[in-house]
Amino acid sequence: MNFLLLETHELDAAGRCRLVGRRAEHVRTVLRAQQGDTLRAAVVDGGVGVARVERIDAEAVDVRCELAADGEPVPADTLLLAVPRPKVLLRILAHAAALGFGRVVLFRSWRVEKSHLGSEAMRPSQQRAALLAGMEQTGRTRLPSVVFQPLFKPMAEDWLPAADLPAARFVAHPPATTPTSALDLAGVGGMALALGPDGGFLPYEVDKLAAAGFLPVTCGARPLRTETALAVLKGQLDVLRARG
Amino acid sequence: MNFLLLETHELDAAGRCRLVGRRAEHVRTVLRAQQGDTLRAAVVDGGVGVARVERIDAEAVDVRCELAADGEPVPADTLLLAVPRPKVLLRILAHAAALGFGRVVLFRSWRVEKSHLGSEAMRPSQQRAALLAGMEQTGRTRLPSVVFQPLFKPMAEDWLPAADLPAARFVAHPPATTPTSALDLAGVGGMALALGPDGGFLPYEVDKLAAAGFLPVTCGARPLRTETALAVLKGQLDVLRARG
Repeated sequence: MNFLLLETHELDAAGRCRLVGRRAEHVRTVLRAQQGDTLRAAVVDGGVGVARVERIDAEAVDVRCELAADGEPVPADTLLLAVPRPKVLLRILAHAAALGFGRVVLFRSWRVEKSHLGSEAMRPSQQRAALLAGMEQTGRTRLPSVVFQPLFKPMAEDWLPAADLPAARFVAHPPATTPTSALDLAGVGGMALALGPDGGFLPYEVDKLAAAGFLPVTCGARPLRTETALAVLKGQLDVLRARG
Repeated sequence: MNFLLLETHELDAAGRCRLVGRRAEHVRTVLRAQQGDTLRAAVVDGGVGVARVERIDAEAVDVRCELAADGEPVPADTLLLAVPRPKVLLRILAHAAALGFGRVVLFRSWRVEKSHLGSEAMRPSQQRAALLAGMEQTGRTRLPSVVFQPLFKPMAEDWLPAADLPAARFVAHPPATTPTSALDLAGVGGMALALGPDGGFLPYEVDKLAAAGFLPVTCGARPLRTETALAVLKGQLDVLRARG
């Protein structure tokens, strides 16, 4: 946590908030804040600013926030992710929030294990906690939205063509013929990136995504774990986009 | 595991090997191999080829390998890593092996917690297991070397100038003025990448690394976790190098 991420309902009308538990402990022992110090702070989906420490004791940390009325824009990048095993899903959601995705579309493909779909990690409350951890870590303030598409074919044929996704769309596919290094991303704003399950997509699935505008790309012939591939590909697309 | 990674001593003179435990289970239930099937296989720091399944039962899988005499070259990229907490260290070693680093230099900097230096994760046997897991996952066959530099100043002033590191050297530093997107890596072969601890390097440490030829670079002002930063930066440097 590099800054304080608060929820609107935690603040009173004067912007005061009492931190207890993990966050109070963090302010005390990691940030080593003293009375009168100011910390970077923000409200989820709200304003960004500072929190002044008004009081610290063993039970709680009282802060008073001064936050701008306007928040940050919602990041335009969208992640489409074949549902991985529960622990990995929550870790990837944290990564996705930290890496600046504004939206996550979970979906089922052939190699997704059915048991994953009923796991605790599919519960919005668990997903929200993972996303908040990733946001907190990098100072992001927009909570990514998460939706689930339970059937691949209807998603690819009906939902994707109608969804308001960025026009620049890529599907990670190690045997693809286009390496990321060959992409020209000059002038590209938001991007959509689709990642398959362990074992990858079926050729049929790659074709369906391609028909929905997703270009199969590879960052190398060696298949990486989904978690690693996400960070590698987001990093590569970001740097190519920044380079123009 | 996308292929079988074996140790030389596991093979008899005819290239036969009996797999038990985790690897046998993997061949049976994940790869769903049958008698007569061939799998990709390699020996650590040795040849690459195939393993033919000669026999499968509940206890063991017998394979016979045909491997080329020559192995893959040692990857030229070097990772310099401030010692993180034990669990993260082992995960990062697996990532580093999967991402194709040939050498890892662990070091101590100001913000490295002293307790991490005496952890089980600093034992070569634990590190080796983590590296092998990363290699196995991506089909790499060269075991990265790992060394530890216990004192920052002697490392920066004496060891680094004499070490046989690639000439292209970068230190990850979120406030750096050079974004990765501004780098020109045309013609660059191997690279050395230095990553600091949570909380980053001291300015003094960045200066010392800069004096040893490490260019401070940033992949964004928002500090990522070391694990994520490693994959993002390696991905970015790889794609810029491939682009030339």
